[in-house]
Parts: sequence; structure tokens; C-alpha cells
Amino acid sequence: MRDGDRALPFDDRGLSYGDGLFETVLVRDGKPVLWEEHLARLEEGCRRLELTMPKPADLNGIFANIPLFQQPLAVLKLILTRGSGGRGYRPPWPSDCRLRYRLTPFSPDEERWHRGVRIRRCSLRLGIQPRLAGIKHLNRLENVLARSEWNDDAIAEGLLCDSDGRLVEATSMNLFWQRQGRLETPRLDRCGVAGTLRQALLDRLPIQEVNAGVAVLEEAEALWLGNSVQGIWPVIALNNIDGTGGLTWALNETHRHLQNHAHRLLGYPLIQSPQPGDATP
Amino acid sequence: MRDGDRALPFDDRGLSYGDGLFETVLVRDGKPVLWEEHLARLEEGCRRLELTMPKPADLNGIFANIPLFQQPLAVLKLILTRGSGGRGYRPPWPSDCRLRYRLTPFSPDEERWHRGVRIRRCSLRLGIQPRLAGIKHLNRLENVLARSEWNDDAIAEGLLCDSDGRLVEATSMNLFWQRQGRLETPRLDRCGVAGTLRQALLDRLPIQEVNAGVAVLEEAEALWLGNSVQGIWPVIALNNIDGTGGLTWALNETHRHLQNHAHRLLGYPLIQSPQPGDATP
Repeated sequence: MRDGDRALPFDDRGLSYGDGLFETVLVRDGKPVLWEEHLARLEEGCRRLELTMPKPADLNGIFANIPLFQQPLAVLKLILTRGSGGRGYRPPWPSDCRLRYRLTPFSPDEERWHRGVRIRRCSLRLGIQPRLAGIKHLNRLENVLARSEWNDDAIAEGLLCDSDGRLVEATSMNLFWQRQGRLETPRLDRCGVAGTLRQALLDRLPIQEVNAGVAVLEEAEALWLGNSVQGIWPVIALNNIDGTGGLTWALNETHRHLQNHAHRLLGYPLIQSPQPGDATP
Repeated sequence: MRDGDRALPFDDRGLSYGDGLFETVLVRDGKPVLWEEHLARLEEGCRRLELTMPKPADLNGIFANIPLFQQPLAVLKLILTRGSGGRGYRPPWPSDCRLRYRLTPFSPDEERWHRGVRIRRCSLRLGIQPRLAGIKHLNRLENVLARSEWNDDAIAEGLLCDSDGRLVEATSMNLFWQRQGRLETPRLDRCGVAGTLRQALLDRLPIQEVNAGVAVLEEAEALWLGNSVQGIWPVIALNNIDGTGGLTWALNETHRHLQNHAHRLLGYPLIQSPQPGDATP
């Protein structure tokens, strides 16, 4: 792990152009969680950007000398850039990619598992760019701007639509809902990040990828946010762009169903079904 | 100038998210060219991203100890990032911005001034994001992907439209044309980079900012690309996306008119009007 996070030269294309990819991986007892899904997304990102995928030995080597913290959980942030060189935007060929990583101790926000979260709509609309949709590239100014829209810590996340008004994701999590008994998540072929937890759930549960505007949430029996690090947060309130209350949901068995599927995948404790009166939307 | 280009830490937000801005400045005899325009764009970028604008003393200090090369021309690349910190996408407040820069000797491509250039249409469409339009931010994967579409050195640049099919720019230059005697350039309120040479020309000449599809070029009497480093290249041929020839232009007095306006601003030599037979589209 030593020197995995050493500084990057001024001319690294990751800095100059965001010309690279990243992964944020939950690490439990020194072992990466959903590692296959992370590798698959990294590989898809390399294919789309024509980057050289790191050798399996280099990636697995990260975990050979991993430092163990006082606690069993950590997050590995991994950054792969196209390295230095090229003339302006034109990439060098072949590229000499640069891999950096850093491990940080981590604790999930357990209260949000149990009580659910309040979120709001963001006014920023994601630009539509099929060439970059789904992959976890380093061009994340839209997410930064969207996350800058509120300071209230009682609001956990912000809901993002694309410039055509279709639901996409939250600023750092994917979106799931149930309507008429069916699980759905936004299709991510035009923008957004296809999370590894989302992929693992899609592979195991009958979740439909759909094109839908925010109005679909008025019919939703349950709404969740999720990613591979935090697990799944049930949403109990969705505020409008102006901050006023819009939709609310009471925590229910449905919420716990998807949540516990995800928590089994991530090794998190199962959440007990709420008793009447638990929900406080 | 010493250490202006020292390495950046792993957790710099410019690397993690492209959370920052850059400027590429022509430097003549140790003095920046169109410096006011560069400062104005940097300031507008800081306003939009809520970054702290560097102090004038820090910016002007760059030129106090500038190394002089054998030749009078150089390019200064300046990168301003939001620095380290913040929780995920959420920016730290206040941010401790990081300024880096590097000076490189430079020679413009004079042959392209005189003979003009062949360009092609790119298949990539720029995503529409008014919040980032015009400023020179570090999220430039679209430009990298567009510039990767061709390898033929005989093709100087690629023409970019947005996802609605409107003309925007070339991968690293702005676009100007004349039709029915009027100078026009694409409006850049939805995507694209508002170049400093473009701004300086808009301030001095009757150039109209317009919304137009690529069909407008069929009516154009002249087409140019330009930026503050290379000056102005007349376009003599525009290939289709499949690489086949589309539109051609003979070099003419009109071409030299805008070109010499720009070259006076940049301190480049004036270009003589072509003699009949000079143009080889």
C-alpha cells in the first residue's frame, strides 16, 4: 500500500482534463467487497476511454500489503489516469496509465439505514452524454455543483434529472423505487454512474431499468438510495427544489426487503422491520 | 516560476473531480497576451464554481521571475483547483484553492495561417450544461474523446455540435464564419469554451453570436478556427463524419481580414492576401 497515494505530476491528464476513472471500494477485513463488479466497471471505463486496464496482479497486489485499521471497515479510493503526454487533448498512443490509491477507515451511517433519509430535488440538470454514461470517470463537476446546492445536514442527498427531465440518480448514489409491486431504477444510457451495488442488485433481483420523470415517484410505494459503500438508505421525504416538502413515505417491510438484499451483499447487518410508529417523515 | 508546476497531492479535487479551471496563455517576451481576457474568464469560472480567485499579486508574480527561452514565444498553462478536502463531492467551505503553472516554449503553426486547414465533423455531440458553458473548467473528457476520433495529421481539427445538433466549436478552437457579408460565431450559453481571442474579437468587430446547425456552413463565404495561442486558421475543407469531403472554400481576402485582426491582437505577423491559385482545397 506504501506510496499508493503519492503525488501526481502537473502534466497528468487526470488533472488536466479529468482523463481517467476512479472506483470507491468498500474493504472489509482487508478484502474488497463487490470487487468483481468494480473490476467490470473499471474495464468498461477503460474500453470507452481507450485506457489500458491495469494488470490483475497490480490490482490484486493492492490488497496484499493492506494496512489493517482498528476497525474492520475501510474505503479504498482508486484513481486510474491516462498518465502524462499527448499534444493537447489528443491522447498519447499507447498511453502509460497511472494508478494511484488510498485506503481510509470508514463507518457507514447506520442511523440512515434505520430511520431513512430526507432528500431534495436539485435544480442542476445532468447533461446528456451517452459516450460517458454509466462509467465512473473523473469529470464530476456536475456532481460537485449539485452537491453545493444545499448545506442543511438534515438533507442527505439530492435527486438529479437530466436535461430532458428524466430521473437519473442522486449526487453520489443510485436510485430505486417500487411501484405497483415492481422494483425500478433509472436507465443509465445517457448520463449518470452505474453503481456497483446497483449492478449486483440488477443481477439478482427483478429490477426494471426505466425511463421516467420525477412524477413517477408520486406512485411509488417505496424509494431508496444506495451505493456500494453506504448500503441502502430508505427515503422518507423528498423536498421540492425550493426546499419545501413534496412527497413522503413511511418506512415499511418493502423498504427492508431491498435494504437487506443489499446488506447481505455488502456484509452489513440486516435491518429489522419497523414497528408501527417508527417512521417519522 | 520555480516550483510553479510541483506535483499535486492525491486528494486534490482537481484530480478527483476535475474541480477547477485552467488557462492557456500566449507569452511574448515574458509578457502575457490577452491577459485581461484570461483574467476575466478565470474570474467568471471562479464565480460559477464558487472558487476563490487568486490574488492579483499571486497571478502577476508569475511573470516577475519568468524564465526567458531562446525564442520570444512561450505558452503558460495555469491550473487552479479547489484544493484538498470536503466530504465526497461536497466542497469544503471556505476552499483553499491551489494554483499551479508551467511555461513551455512555443511556435505557432505558421503554415496553417498561410495555407489554411482541413477539418472534419466529429461524431461526438457535446452534452448541454448551461452551468458549465463558456468557462474553461477541468472536465474535458468530451474534448479528449472528440480529438481521438481521427489520427490523420492532414486533418487539423474536428467540428463539434451539441446534442441538439447546434454548432459549438472545434475540439480546441472557436469557430467563426461569414455569410451574406456578416461575421458570425456560435452562441456558447449551453456548452463549449468561450475563448479569449473570441472574446477580444467580439469586443472589437461586429460579430453576431448565433444558434445555428452545421447546414449554415453551406452558405458561408469563409470559415475560420481560432484561439489565443495559435491565432486564426482559415478552413479550406470540411469533411463529413465518414471522412469524405463535404464543403470547401478557396482562401480569399475575407479570410485575411479576420485573420489579421486577430494577429494584431496576438502580435503575430500580418498575412498577405492570397494570389489567385494559392488556395488548394
